[in-house]
Amino acid sequence: MGATEKIARFIVETGYLDVPREAVEKAKRTALDCLGAALAGIGEPVSRAITEYVSRLGGSSQASVFGAAVKASVADAVLANGTIAHALDYDDCGVKIGHPSVLVLPAVLSLGEHLGASGQETLAAYIIGLEIEGKLALHADFKLMQARLNHQTWYGSIGAAAACAKLLRLDVAKTRMALGIAGNFACGLSANHGSMAGAMSAGNACRNGVIAALMAREGITANPDIIEAKNGFYDTLVGPGRHDAERMSQTLGDPYYIESPGIGLKKYPSCYHTHRALDGIFKLLGENPLSDKEIAAIDVGTSERALRVLAFSEPATPYQAKYSMPHCIAAAVVDRAVTLDTFTDHKLNDPRIMDARKKVHLSFPDLPIWPGLADVGPDTEFVGNPVAIRTKDGRHYSARVDIPRGDPALPLSDEELLAKFRDCAGSQLGPDKIERSVDMVLGLEKLTNSGALIAALGSSRQA
Amino acid sequence: MGATEKIARFIVETGYLDVPREAVEKAKRTALDCLGAALAGIGEPVSRAITEYVSRLGGSSQASVFGAAVKASVADAVLANGTIAHALDYDDCGVKIGHPSVLVLPAVLSLGEHLGASGQETLAAYIIGLEIEGKLALHADFKLMQARLNHQTWYGSIGAAAACAKLLRLDVAKTRMALGIAGNFACGLSANHGSMAGAMSAGNACRNGVIAALMAREGITANPDIIEAKNGFYDTLVGPGRHDAERMSQTLGDPYYIESPGIGLKKYPSCYHTHRALDGIFKLLGENPLSDKEIAAIDVGTSERALRVLAFSEPATPYQAKYSMPHCIAAAVVDRAVTLDTFTDHKLNDPRIMDARKKVHLSFPDLPIWPGLADVGPDTEFVGNPVAIRTKDGRHYSARVDIPRGDPALPLSDEELLAKFRDCAGSQLGPDKIERSVDMVLGLEKLTNSGALIAALGSSRQA
Repeated sequence: MGATEKIARFIVETGYLDVPREAVEKAKRTALDCLGAALAGIGEPVSRAITEYVSRLGGSSQASVFGAAVKASVADAVLANGTIAHALDYDDCGVKIGHPSVLVLPAVLSLGEHLGASGQETLAAYIIGLEIEGKLALHADFKLMQARLNHQTWYGSIGAAAACAKLLRLDVAKTRMALGIAGNFACGLSANHGSMAGAMSAGNACRNGVIAALMAREGITANPDIIEAKNGFYDTLVGPGRHDAERMSQTLGDPYYIESPGIGLKKYPSCYHTHRALDGIFKLLGENPLSDKEIAAIDVGTSERALRVLAFSEPATPYQAKYSMPHCIAAAVVDRAVTLDTFTDHKLNDPRIMDARKKVHLSFPDLPIWPGLADVGPDTEFVGNPVAIRTKDGRHYSARVDIPRGDPALPLSDEELLAKFRDCAGSQLGPDKIERSVDMVLGLEKLTNSGALIAALGSSRQA
Repeated sequence: MGATEKIARFIVETGYLDVPREAVEKAKRTALDCLGAALAGIGEPVSRAITEYVSRLGGSSQASVFGAAVKASVADAVLANGTIAHALDYDDCGVKIGHPSVLVLPAVLSLGEHLGASGQETLAAYIIGLEIEGKLALHADFKLMQARLNHQTWYGSIGAAAACAKLLRLDVAKTRMALGIAGNFACGLSANHGSMAGAMSAGNACRNGVIAALMAREGITANPDIIEAKNGFYDTLVGPGRHDAERMSQTLGDPYYIESPGIGLKKYPSCYHTHRALDGIFKLLGENPLSDKEIAAIDVGTSERALRVLAFSEPATPYQAKYSMPHCIAAAVVDRAVTLDTFTDHKLNDPRIMDARKKVHLSFPDLPIWPGLADVGPDTEFVGNPVAIRTKDGRHYSARVDIPRGDPALPLSDEELLAKFRDCAGSQLGPDKIERSVDMVLGLEKLTNSGALIAALGSSRQA
């Protein structure tokens, strides 16, 4: 039996009750986190543009667009919702998949809304989607096509198709077709990183998955062995000899990707490359009651590779500020917090933060690759970030954080998770609705129709 | 000025009156041919499946789906119409682009219907779309990414975006964004060739182009230099050093691709690799009144490369019969014609044709690459096909055709073009509607609203 057939059998044969309880509990938390990022993202320019695009295509009313009175065809709603949920880059992170949930969850929720799927079906489909995309990534070379193709959208298209095939209850033959069609829609050029089209990577993946599954239902055919086929998915994305489809298909569910390596949640709405340094700064500030006025200089160790992403020492926009180590560190020492509010024009131009930004100095110590992940390859930067604070009166404090808060090895507490969700949802939902949404997501297995959750989030503007 | 900017300027600055009359005349003929292929394709299984998919997405009514009472959003209509028009592989052929029109025309016609574009605007957009995709292909290495990506969909996505940006009257900045977004949607795996997902290549391209242009209108951003950018369109599709974006952008409109190398029309609804041999057989039969009963054997020279496509010596389905040299030749000697009717279950099981199929013998002479196109590379088979008929009483006739009828160097007469269209349209339109459609297409520049043409074709079922 080939890899694609094994994958399809896994999708068809795995139900909610087959998934370990721990995986379900983790999945409800990543779902809540992703929905928070979506609520926070509604006001972003790319979200407004994609909502306007979907509205103008008009007419159908199968599924809700986050934050809008608009309903759209399930394919269009999912394109918008995936884009909105990833607009702020505040959604979860995983090994070899940049942002696992957002490539799958919007597809699952919208198709579930359209079909009236139960909470248990929705959870099973979501976990299966994460599993397929995650394992596809784990068993392939990380360098991918000389990095030309946006690997996240490619993996996500297949993962979302797997999840949607599950929700549609396709049989093994049609599930194989859904995977094949999704392979044919997989897309994304790395040259579009940093533009709205790049931010659309998640929306593309979700949409590709949904339409592939819906097309398979109608009898559209494709290569039944798309994962392992010559000129197929792996062959095209990473090239021959740089993947192991057979092994990938043997490891499904044992353990689940969401259990190990697990999925990290972002504690701060900034680039992941700032998180260890921020944790280090907050550790020092917690141990030593220092005001920003007392501080003479802050040294932050990072890597040249990280600086390719952290490209804005002098950020001009709130979005650039998310990719500015000096701004993040400065906000931390002035405000004692890095939240959505940190990345606003107001904070960008706050004289105290502007002053503190100038005190941040970057250095490039010889940082180790995080043990156990060295085989992931040189594109990954799982290294510690040393930080040091020097005061005007000559004191010196230093720390080094290797594992950021929110990493699977050091997860956010439920309290921290809820605090993040409340911060994210605040612009869209009143306090009562926020708590009701939390209860619904964390009790998702009890919902007979997961559309109730969408309704609770979707009627948000009127709250 | 970079290549993408030059391309965008060409799109914005070229109007109907700037296009040479000869290009316009040719374009009306390729459009008629493509619409005929679409009408003939409506009954195919992939067409029924994609129409059902689009219908179920439901609701919107911006543009017509060929052959259905259904209207859909312009994005969904275009996905269906591109797929339907390519379902029979009877649409036009071009150098380095397998099927130029079908990647662009359905997008232009449906968006034109939605916008109420004039015939002249529609023609200009169509010719511009052909020009961009054609020149992109001409100035890149033919081997493409080790043939893993479906190059046709990639080129077509950009071509359709160019055409739709023109119809939407986007400015240069937004046209660059439309090209960038289309690059991000470009997709298609060669492993899906021969499946319905493969047949969808044209639908994908048309859809990608339309949505990219509509998204650019809403302000979605992308890399403004997507054609020449590192990790951009050319870099990803064919790899660095294997394309010439600069030269591509300098040759736009001088002459137009539709003028030179020009676009070929298929005289027979079978694989293009059968066309020279069929022309040779018809030449011999025209000169010598032979019945199939008198024939002992037919020798057809072809190449091993052609046989990779002509994979069905013993075709089991009408679709396989289109890729069977023995079936095509047998039908020619029995029926004296190769038309849509040749590729039906009835003809597949016709005892006389079955008997004649057994008389066809393939040989592999050392065929030359067609002069002047050698630089296109070894993937192209512009070679002559020798054919010979031996009779039971010992006579021997032979011929070799180098240029197939319908090639730009040996175009179909208007009479032949119309005969093909009537054959194609017959299953959908009555005789009056057929003639009215012909008049409309060949006088497209006189239509104030090209939607009238769609209405004439779209109400077909009720004819």
